[in-house]
Amino acid sequence: MVTTRGLTLALDGMGGDNGPETVIGGAEVALVRHPDIRFVIYGDEAKMRPLLDKHPRVAAASEIVHTEVSIAMDDKPSQALRRGRKTSSMWLAIDAVKTGRAQAAVSAGNTGALMAMSKVILKTMPNVERPALAALWPTARGESVVLDLGATIGPDAWQLVQFAVMGEAFARVIFGLERPSVGLLNIGEEEVKGTEQVKDAAKMLRDAKLPMNFHGFVEGDDISKGTVDVVVTDGYTGNIALKTAEGTVRLIVEFLRSAMRSSILSKIGYVFAQSAFRALATKLDPRTSNGAVFLGLNGIVVKSHGDTDAMGYAYAIDVAVDVAAADLLNKIVSDLAGLDGLSGHEGRAQKPANEESEAALS
Amino acid sequence: MVTTRGLTLALDGMGGDNGPETVIGGAEVALVRHPDIRFVIYGDEAKMRPLLDKHPRVAAASEIVHTEVSIAMDDKPSQALRRGRKTSSMWLAIDAVKTGRAQAAVSAGNTGALMAMSKVILKTMPNVERPALAALWPTARGESVVLDLGATIGPDAWQLVQFAVMGEAFARVIFGLERPSVGLLNIGEEEVKGTEQVKDAAKMLRDAKLPMNFHGFVEGDDISKGTVDVVVTDGYTGNIALKTAEGTVRLIVEFLRSAMRSSILSKIGYVFAQSAFRALATKLDPRTSNGAVFLGLNGIVVKSHGDTDAMGYAYAIDVAVDVAAADLLNKIVSDLAGLDGLSGHEGRAQKPANEESEAALS
Repeated sequence: MVTTRGLTLALDGMGGDNGPETVIGGAEVALVRHPDIRFVIYGDEAKMRPLLDKHPRVAAASEIVHTEVSIAMDDKPSQALRRGRKTSSMWLAIDAVKTGRAQAAVSAGNTGALMAMSKVILKTMPNVERPALAALWPTARGESVVLDLGATIGPDAWQLVQFAVMGEAFARVIFGLERPSVGLLNIGEEEVKGTEQVKDAAKMLRDAKLPMNFHGFVEGDDISKGTVDVVVTDGYTGNIALKTAEGTVRLIVEFLRSAMRSSILSKIGYVFAQSAFRALATKLDPRTSNGAVFLGLNGIVVKSHGDTDAMGYAYAIDVAVDVAAADLLNKIVSDLAGLDGLSGHEGRAQKPANEESEAALS
Repeated sequence: MVTTRGLTLALDGMGGDNGPETVIGGAEVALVRHPDIRFVIYGDEAKMRPLLDKHPRVAAASEIVHTEVSIAMDDKPSQALRRGRKTSSMWLAIDAVKTGRAQAAVSAGNTGALMAMSKVILKTMPNVERPALAALWPTARGESVVLDLGATIGPDAWQLVQFAVMGEAFARVIFGLERPSVGLLNIGEEEVKGTEQVKDAAKMLRDAKLPMNFHGFVEGDDISKGTVDVVVTDGYTGNIALKTAEGTVRLIVEFLRSAMRSSILSKIGYVFAQSAFRALATKLDPRTSNGAVFLGLNGIVVKSHGDTDAMGYAYAIDVAVDVAAADLLNKIVSDLAGLDGLSGHEGRAQKPANEESEAALS
């Protein structure tokens, strides 16, 4: 276990649907689990002060930096970059990672803006053209890493290979596995199925002789089966798969709730089984999987769901703590070095990042 | 309600993981619901005869056509077309729709082969370049139509527009709605998000002045919310979303099962609530949503899950009966006529079907 002593996190105090309330409440919860960590919280001091008075423990563990500008949840990345450059709580939280004032930044703000600012401030790592958003997905075997969940729309095969390398390093760190298995999300297991990008990426991963336990293709239902430790996909498909799964969970919980209310007998049954239902509710609680990491940047930025509460935000802080304490970045950089020269070898012309992707996140 | 008298379905007796057993067992179940329908069953008579002896009702309602060749679940479409042309149970079942011997074909066989043969035999409708696989998805409001679930990988914007028109006609017929709402699956609701294809398709649907209730973009969690009656996507994303949702259901059912077994109290609770759990199990039973329709062909072909049982297969027969009885094809053709001249208007060069898509299904 790595120590969290001396770890400082930069929090975007204004991000998310409920802004400072969620952030400062979440910091309080996180301090119970990690009493040694410290925060720098960026935001509107007038709004944050009364909350800090209510949470003296957070106040004691934090430095507060007043900012005038907040990025709105519906600002386009270009707008956010124009309006929030060097002045917004989001920008300054990310910048704190660059300057070394903090070891990771957490924001519940708008994903597109967070991604755009993170790229401008932290830049991508060597051998990475586009970052990916990675998160943990509950499975029958525990949890798997799934990426990309929406940072890069329309990556090419070579960018999918980069995601695979970064996701594998993330899984090693977060699960403590030596050789996590990696699968490419597709519509079948046969080599001939799928988009050109995914077929080419599979070929590259098979041929590249990377020190990676590459499983091949996996299908949608393999994610929750836990067939592999790392599921690699493009941001469009990954985002849709994630939200489809979240919607499915909500629907079933709703079905279950109304089934338990459907008769006197079922209501009695519910009372007896209450603690089992409570355990199940915890297991299905989306807050416990909150916190996605931008991989491929020279610094750690964790994205919290915008509509989570303090409890959920604390889970995003957990992810930041785990990742920052585990020296993830250096592990990724060293794994990516294994790709040196490979893209040329595969005959792929180096090309600039997809124009399309930027717009897609706006 | 439309009559089913005189309706004949062609069944591919050899398709699916369990072949004739599922097909003939499923026909028995279907005959309880639709006593007037008749079958032509294509398959290996030696294998089917003992099963027909066990199901005299099916035998009485069916004509049996002996075939030597069966398409294997892992045959590539090209292989299937070579080996099974004019001789296989799959080919002959589809051909029966073309010749008018049957009003719809049902197969639990391999999707790629079924799609390839259906295209060769039935051809696509005017204004349709690529078929789509459509199915019903359980939602908080009942059911929605989702397409494409894997027939066309990498459709362009114009093909997505065709899917929208076909899916809307399907929803009108199957739900009896006058103006079903139609949404395009994307990673956000804003116009600037998503792939180029999905953005262009949205623009075309907004500008085309079709008599369609076009809602705009929907996200993954909108599917199970039932935000729209018809969700349009490409076959790659649709297939992954469907299987991800199926996997999520299985995972939660597993969590629920182990929660109910976790203590004496929860076991007692389970006994009291048993009938509620049984109702829930029925609601979540994937067999009840079995049966996807290939839209865009000059004939009705229904795809059953390969690994379903007789009960599930009967649901696929239900879909075929509903669609065949409702004059769906003529409704789609007339709706597609609304696209006449539009593709030129939108400045899109007519191009042949994606090469890629064919291979993708192999």
